[in-house]
Amino acid sequence: MIARQGVVHLVGAGPGDPELMTMKGARLLSEADVVIHDRLIPMEVLDWCREGAEKIDVGKYPEHHRVSQEQINELLVHHATRGSMVVRLKGGDPFVFGRGYEELQVCREHGIACFIVPGVSSSISAAASAGIPVTSRGVARSFAVVTGQTDPALGRYSFDFDALARMDTIVLLMARKNLAEITAGLIAAGLGSDTPAASIENATCENQRVAYGSVSTISDVVKEVGIDSPVVTIIGQVAGMLNQDLIEIPEVRAVLG
Amino acid sequence: MIARQGVVHLVGAGPGDPELMTMKGARLLSEADVVIHDRLIPMEVLDWCREGAEKIDVGKYPEHHRVSQEQINELLVHHATRGSMVVRLKGGDPFVFGRGYEELQVCREHGIACFIVPGVSSSISAAASAGIPVTSRGVARSFAVVTGQTDPALGRYSFDFDALARMDTIVLLMARKNLAEITAGLIAAGLGSDTPAASIENATCENQRVAYGSVSTISDVVKEVGIDSPVVTIIGQVAGMLNQDLIEIPEVRAVLG
Repeated sequence: MIARQGVVHLVGAGPGDPELMTMKGARLLSEADVVIHDRLIPMEVLDWCREGAEKIDVGKYPEHHRVSQEQINELLVHHATRGSMVVRLKGGDPFVFGRGYEELQVCREHGIACFIVPGVSSSISAAASAGIPVTSRGVARSFAVVTGQTDPALGRYSFDFDALARMDTIVLLMARKNLAEITAGLIAAGLGSDTPAASIENATCENQRVAYGSVSTISDVVKEVGIDSPVVTIIGQVAGMLNQDLIEIPEVRAVLG
Repeated sequence: MIARQGVVHLVGAGPGDPELMTMKGARLLSEADVVIHDRLIPMEVLDWCREGAEKIDVGKYPEHHRVSQEQINELLVHHATRGSMVVRLKGGDPFVFGRGYEELQVCREHGIACFIVPGVSSSISAAASAGIPVTSRGVARSFAVVTGQTDPALGRYSFDFDALARMDTIVLLMARKNLAEITAGLIAAGLGSDTPAASIENATCENQRVAYGSVSTISDVVKEVGIDSPVVTIIGQVAGMLNQDLIEIPEVRAVLG
């Protein structure tokens, strides 16, 4: 008897609009025996699973860890070693702040073939969905992406405020809770307090909302209008390119700050 | 008589693998009257155009500008004002180093509706296609993306070597010609000369090749093995995560440096 060989595909589901999933991701989803998915995927894409596919929600809610990373790793290994075609579906791109590499390593350690299917990352597309380019000729020729969550190992942000403040465009992911502290850190490191900033909730989705102001006001604006997770914040001159034109884009609902 | 309203969609075609195009991009392509495309798109996707669609190649080759940006802008306006559904198809993501914002502005100035359809950017996915995460828990919690092409306005790179050297992961796009100069600049700014580095040619495509070494050797390795454009270079500890495992990924053809 020859056992069927299992396989794991780490697939990026994109930033929120189900149609922003890649064709490859959608195809693999329709072929999978088991789909292990996060909370931040567009739930509509699960309709593309074939009948009989097992769907496992391992979404983690803030301060309510439902399934631990260790349990997710065990699920991947369990199903793949039983011969299943497993899709591990993650919001955005699997290799941007997602512990995707750890899952790849676990598969390798168990001799399981594991493939990466990149997705549209909100680190770039959230800005675009508000009409903001992360780079633009004559305005910004570099961008940096950091997570606003504290490093559990350090209990602090591990990024270098001084270096970050000198990038043309700064993209903060998962930074709602710590936004006031981070923007204050950037200003203390020399970033002009009138540098434009925008925060985008539910980027690319129908219920997208955009708040804007400057690096010194954005945390108050976000609080005032109740911008909720998931939120992406863009700081830099490019964020100001939204101010002039956003209102002309009917499908973007702007919350003026 | 009521004139039909034209529209422009700025669509990202992804990093190279045609299947990494988004479902939305593929749908719009199949609906377009006119498709105006770059050189760095996966040419296979043009097969998805409907019969009778006009396809215009405005690809720019290095040192051989075929169609100027002004001419591209005129093409967009010309076809949209005549009532056509225009897809402007760009490699990667339309808002990452692609003059996408300028095209959006031109459309707005002419009262033409213009929509952005994000794509998978090679700034993140090129690394992933070599098994390298741009971020990874305990290794890298920030990444910065810059273009290695000199700024025409300055005749020099406009980025800040000192700030860049302090980012966890550095992604260089279009940096083949200037790679030796840029890596030397990073080392002079304090980046450890043994910091791992990898250069990926034709990322995500069948003919992908990967060269690796350190920030001090990568430009020589790239020259030695003849890595050609388009190339993406990743510098940082994450690039070293490739060394251990890449050879185990059969579908990635590694060129050892």
